[in-house]
Amino acid sequence: MTFETLSSKTLYQGKVFDLHQEQVRMPNGKTARLDIIEHPPSVAMVPLDDEGYIWFIRQYRHAAGVEILELPAGVVESGEAPEACALREIREETGISAAEIQLLGEFYLVPGYSSEYMYVYLVKELQPDPLPGDEDEFITVERISVEAAYQMAEAGEIRDAKSIAALLLAAPYIKLSQK
Amino acid sequence: MTFETLSSKTLYQGKVFDLHQEQVRMPNGKTARLDIIEHPPSVAMVPLDDEGYIWFIRQYRHAAGVEILELPAGVVESGEAPEACALREIREETGISAAEIQLLGEFYLVPGYSSEYMYVYLVKELQPDPLPGDEDEFITVERISVEAAYQMAEAGEIRDAKSIAALLLAAPYIKLSQK
Repeated sequence: MTFETLSSKTLYQGKVFDLHQEQVRMPNGKTARLDIIEHPPSVAMVPLDDEGYIWFIRQYRHAAGVEILELPAGVVESGEAPEACALREIREETGISAAEIQLLGEFYLVPGYSSEYMYVYLVKELQPDPLPGDEDEFITVERISVEAAYQMAEAGEIRDAKSIAALLLAAPYIKLSQK
Repeated sequence: MTFETLSSKTLYQGKVFDLHQEQVRMPNGKTARLDIIEHPPSVAMVPLDDEGYIWFIRQYRHAAGVEILELPAGVVESGEAPEACALREIREETGISAAEIQLLGEFYLVPGYSSEYMYVYLVKELQPDPLPGDEDEFITVERISVEAAYQMAEAGEIRDAKSIAALLLAAPYIKLSQK
């Protein structure tokens, strides 16, 4: 089942995403107008160090109006492979590089209105190796033990969907490696 | 830490969300332009029936261009309480009503560019009680056992961030109730 696109126009072209408006024909023959955010793919990382800590970041998010505890994440640049993006972003956001990287899963974030599709990686064998961060990001790194991180997530104390979802994807590997 | 909003203009007002452009001053004194989706709050539900099955839905998502397996979810209407929205949406999307409802957690979906904030509920004591669905939604209900649902989520077979995150939030309650 799909919707047939009858027409599409670009309402706005932004730095991070574009806004399209599409006229579609639905399976019942009726037409509808849909507003769609066209967003590049993105990545999120679960950085696990040798001492059993996961590296989170805390950053102010203007769209939310609050500081949020999140896993490191970023947007794939044009021509960049998702895995290369993950290794770059973790250096920019946490100042560490990872010698081991493993794809855990992939998901849409808000499939109702955005094309953004995220790749989630477990990254290990971490060592200090900073890259300059983005000018408009103000980030604090917080190392949280695996046990505390999952307790916080299950208790609803992590208010970011991708971070909670990434922890579930990582659970079979992280629990294995901690036992 | 926050960004100071210097100016804000509405670039687009849509049926589901608006697009704002804000000029902000950051903590380092520099200014930046941010494109922000203003979206109402939303809800997602983990419907658990007496036989140990979770009710998922499969629906075509035009922004993604594919059908996705998701938990039931919806957007809070103006003046509506999130819990009332959850009980309404589950009737519209799955044709069941719930006698028991419990808030599991809350999270932002894409705090980098959208204000959307989602409330996640565990709903139980289900019984047939349909409401007419939205005209532009084409939904198939899929009952999946608790065990299979978590296996699928951990294996990366559920490609929707809110659904995976909601399953982690529900885990302590669902595992308890199944044992």
